[in-house]
Amino acid sequence: MSQNYAIIVAGGSGTRMGTTVPKQFLSVNGLPVLMHTLLAFYNSASKPHLILALPKGFHDYWKQLCNTHNFNIDYILATGGETRFQSVKAAFELISDHNSLIAVHDAVRPLINSQLIDAAYQQAAETGNAIVAVKSRDSIRQLKNGLSASLKRDEIYLVQTPQIFQYKQLKRAYLQTYSDVFTDDASVVEAAGFKIHLIEGDNQNIKITFPEDIAIAELILKGREDAGS
Amino acid sequence: MSQNYAIIVAGGSGTRMGTTVPKQFLSVNGLPVLMHTLLAFYNSASKPHLILALPKGFHDYWKQLCNTHNFNIDYILATGGETRFQSVKAAFELISDHNSLIAVHDAVRPLINSQLIDAAYQQAAETGNAIVAVKSRDSIRQLKNGLSASLKRDEIYLVQTPQIFQYKQLKRAYLQTYSDVFTDDASVVEAAGFKIHLIEGDNQNIKITFPEDIAIAELILKGREDAGS
Repeated sequence: MSQNYAIIVAGGSGTRMGTTVPKQFLSVNGLPVLMHTLLAFYNSASKPHLILALPKGFHDYWKQLCNTHNFNIDYILATGGETRFQSVKAAFELISDHNSLIAVHDAVRPLINSQLIDAAYQQAAETGNAIVAVKSRDSIRQLKNGLSASLKRDEIYLVQTPQIFQYKQLKRAYLQTYSDVFTDDASVVEAAGFKIHLIEGDNQNIKITFPEDIAIAELILKGREDAGS
Repeated sequence: MSQNYAIIVAGGSGTRMGTTVPKQFLSVNGLPVLMHTLLAFYNSASKPHLILALPKGFHDYWKQLCNTHNFNIDYILATGGETRFQSVKAAFELISDHNSLIAVHDAVRPLINSQLIDAAYQQAAETGNAIVAVKSRDSIRQLKNGLSASLKRDEIYLVQTPQIFQYKQLKRAYLQTYSDVFTDDASVVEAAGFKIHLIEGDNQNIKITFPEDIAIAELILKGREDAGS
């Protein structure tokens, strides 16, 4: 039995997209974003148990979508909270296996590839955690008190997901009180005192944020199909 | 007579694209990237004098492209150097107007819009410089000595171009010896002792870096045409 878990976090009201339908439900090549995301984990060699954290108000809508698309892979449907922090915490509390590795992944990163998922589980098994991140292509500045200063570009990583942790790390991390510096799980686990380990990500593993990102995602998928055929 | 200048820096051997043709010459909607870039500045209300810094080895190829596309706007063709630093310096030395504002812009950012160019010249006139930058959408980590630490996301800006400076700032900046922390002109000017001022950029102002970026650029241009029609 696999000791791997994956929590897929779907929050977001979709306000930045200018749509009323949250981003995770928008269609990419005929299939909702969230189904692409779940399938990437489902099809990985790591075969994690899947937990989908979705706000209660979207459960019925999601079930209808699953009927429409005849989408019936195995996963646990958890009730997401007001914030990302609450959603991950609620999903995590459904896991009782103290020896597990647990991935947390954004529902709106549907282009994650299964090989990278497997590599990240592998590294987390060795070092306690593995955070998918890419080097910055742009110069970076840090703005403090109205004044900006350059940072060394080759030291800067843009953090993606999945972020994979040993059970005990998430356990201790999510006992903490929420802070607004918790923009991802690595920052929560780091605050709990654990060293964070990066693994090289993929520029194609984009976060669907703006309307044009849907078309960009379709374009990248088309490129993969062309390369695979 | 305009006191505005724009240096368009075209370097790059295109190795990351997997093409032999450098990125600035690749076609977006039938027109080379570099022509889109030059036209954005040409069509701005700021009407800068244009200086194109291009490695000597590409001058003939570029002139042929201009013939093919009947591209004949006014600009000065400068000889770029081995590095970006050398190219900007060589182009800058062609400017003698001590009261000018000088934009430096990547040749491979063809989607810069003219309104943002004008806003940046305006701000540089008021504060001495203006650096186009966008807030990070991703969590950010800084890797030092093998250990990564989270940075506060809302303090982090990804730097784009144009970067616009008063003549005297670039003058003093480019008297410095090259350092490998000079990844953009803001870092060069900052090292010369000037305060750097940011101006909100545009997520569509992408840098053509990977093969899929050409298709993404075409997609964004199509979106603009649809919005404009």
